[in-house]
Amino acid sequence: MSRGAGKGPKGGPRGPKGGGGGGGRGKGQPRNPRKAGGGRGGPPRGRGRDGQRGTTPLRDGDGNRAKGGSLGGDQVEGRHAVRELLLAGTRRTREVVLAGDLDPAPILDEIIDLADEAKVTITEMSRAKFESMTRTEGSQGVMAMAQPLQPTELEDLLQPDFDGTPPFLLLLDSITDPGNLGAILRTAECSGVTGIVLPRHRAAHITPTVAKSAAGAIEHLRMALVGGLPAAMTTMKKHGIWTVGLDAGGERSIHDLPVASEPVGLVLGAEGSGLSRLVRERCDTVASIPMAGVLDSLNVSAAAAVACYEVARLRSS
Amino acid sequence: MSRGAGKGPKGGPRGPKGGGGGGGRGKGQPRNPRKAGGGRGGPPRGRGRDGQRGTTPLRDGDGNRAKGGSLGGDQVEGRHAVRELLLAGTRRTREVVLAGDLDPAPILDEIIDLADEAKVTITEMSRAKFESMTRTEGSQGVMAMAQPLQPTELEDLLQPDFDGTPPFLLLLDSITDPGNLGAILRTAECSGVTGIVLPRHRAAHITPTVAKSAAGAIEHLRMALVGGLPAAMTTMKKHGIWTVGLDAGGERSIHDLPVASEPVGLVLGAEGSGLSRLVRERCDTVASIPMAGVLDSLNVSAAAAVACYEVARLRSS
Repeated sequence: MSRGAGKGPKGGPRGPKGGGGGGGRGKGQPRNPRKAGGGRGGPPRGRGRDGQRGTTPLRDGDGNRAKGGSLGGDQVEGRHAVRELLLAGTRRTREVVLAGDLDPAPILDEIIDLADEAKVTITEMSRAKFESMTRTEGSQGVMAMAQPLQPTELEDLLQPDFDGTPPFLLLLDSITDPGNLGAILRTAECSGVTGIVLPRHRAAHITPTVAKSAAGAIEHLRMALVGGLPAAMTTMKKHGIWTVGLDAGGERSIHDLPVASEPVGLVLGAEGSGLSRLVRERCDTVASIPMAGVLDSLNVSAAAAVACYEVARLRSS
Repeated sequence: MSRGAGKGPKGGPRGPKGGGGGGGRGKGQPRNPRKAGGGRGGPPRGRGRDGQRGTTPLRDGDGNRAKGGSLGGDQVEGRHAVRELLLAGTRRTREVVLAGDLDPAPILDEIIDLADEAKVTITEMSRAKFESMTRTEGSQGVMAMAQPLQPTELEDLLQPDFDGTPPFLLLLDSITDPGNLGAILRTAECSGVTGIVLPRHRAAHITPTVAKSAAGAIEHLRMALVGGLPAAMTTMKKHGIWTVGLDAGGERSIHDLPVASEPVGLVLGAEGSGLSRLVRERCDTVASIPMAGVLDSLNVSAAAAVACYEVARLRSS
């Protein structure tokens, strides 16, 4: 791998794993390299906005804000996911770990530059040792240890975004496959979803596989953990948020939703079984995606992509 | 597992693997149980059409039609994929293989009934032996051995569908991840794509992972193998098919495509690198999906879902 000399200890020891607190070598300082214009060629990614949209602000200290439960996300694997972690700078990265046998690639140089800039320890280790630490199948030789993600309060998601964008929330009812959950978060971030609502007790944890599949979306999305979706939907309704469930037996097509500029919440059910009865009953309307072929249903992450982008299109038109 | 007595040999020997020809025990006769109304509760799935859309007709004998190359698809794993294989009846199934430790489930009973009805051998074997034969991670204890998929000639895809629907083709330029390829095929089938065009030399093979991820879509989609996409696009152009490339740097939004009832071909590029230069140059237009957040790009299968459904919506409106 081609990298500058002296960029972090080679094969050096790692700090203790897990836990957001305590001291340690090379703890990175949170900053946003995009705003500083450093570490990245090409056009700025804020897309005309001042910095990131919907980013959970970093709290001082160790983020003692987790009264709503923990989201996880402390182990991040995969090149895009680690680059986004460092680029976003919305939470502390304690260490970047590289497998020792990587071929040169621009994204690796970028990761190393970003870590250096943020004074994050870079550790290189044998492939065997690296693989023993990974928890996904697609680490691509790169992982990072970071402060866990901090959930946002539901109430914060119910207000317009900092630039006045009315809420566009995505409620995920028991999505259990981590690859699907990550893919949905990535799509949500790209389509302009302003917040994610996850039930606390059902597979809401951002595991390394979720983080990898989300390709950095977890650094930018605000996520709330709630005791149960039905109660959260009642709260949302009081705040004027109109909820649309997505279900094969929906009463109208996703293309015919009367969605414009008002606040909206899109509710996705589990793979296979769909929306639970109580959640379905609380929806203001239930919509379906047209099936033009012989098969019964889309994969849940494909359905999420179609629905998120259709709501986004209707809101912008 | 609860199943009727005498439904196929229990733990019996399997026939020789691979090869579409030759005799064998329990070779199924092609038929369409949907038309016969058997083997399936619930509403008919033809959705008002007479039988399946865009199904490659089964050839007599051993399907000596593969001058365009082989698509693979002879080993099908996963419950939905195997059920669709049997339901469609568009190619011979030689054997259904079940792991011996499965808990009862309605879909398993359905698979067994369909296999019995088609006189397909059912073999039950120990989990260890079963797993040694599987080639995916999600076989769910069910696999089938079938006649390989037969490609369709490109020229056949350029004509209107049997019900007059103008072609809606999907061209896949070097999609290498089998999970993504399968997911895209599933979405394509659901959105009304009338044919798939795949380059012969680039990862076009329908592996067990592709088949699993496609959840049965491969039984219903017509797929053509071509020497190269640029040449195929020239042929398509001569037949009046308008081609839309999908690329992050597209000159217009996917929402602004002037697509109505005319024949259309949507071209998707590889994960990461996008459309190759030559393919991009041959496109009549290049469109992009709006990115409303901070991330650069969608996963290719999410992008396929958004684009296929947007083209379908424009065609139907």
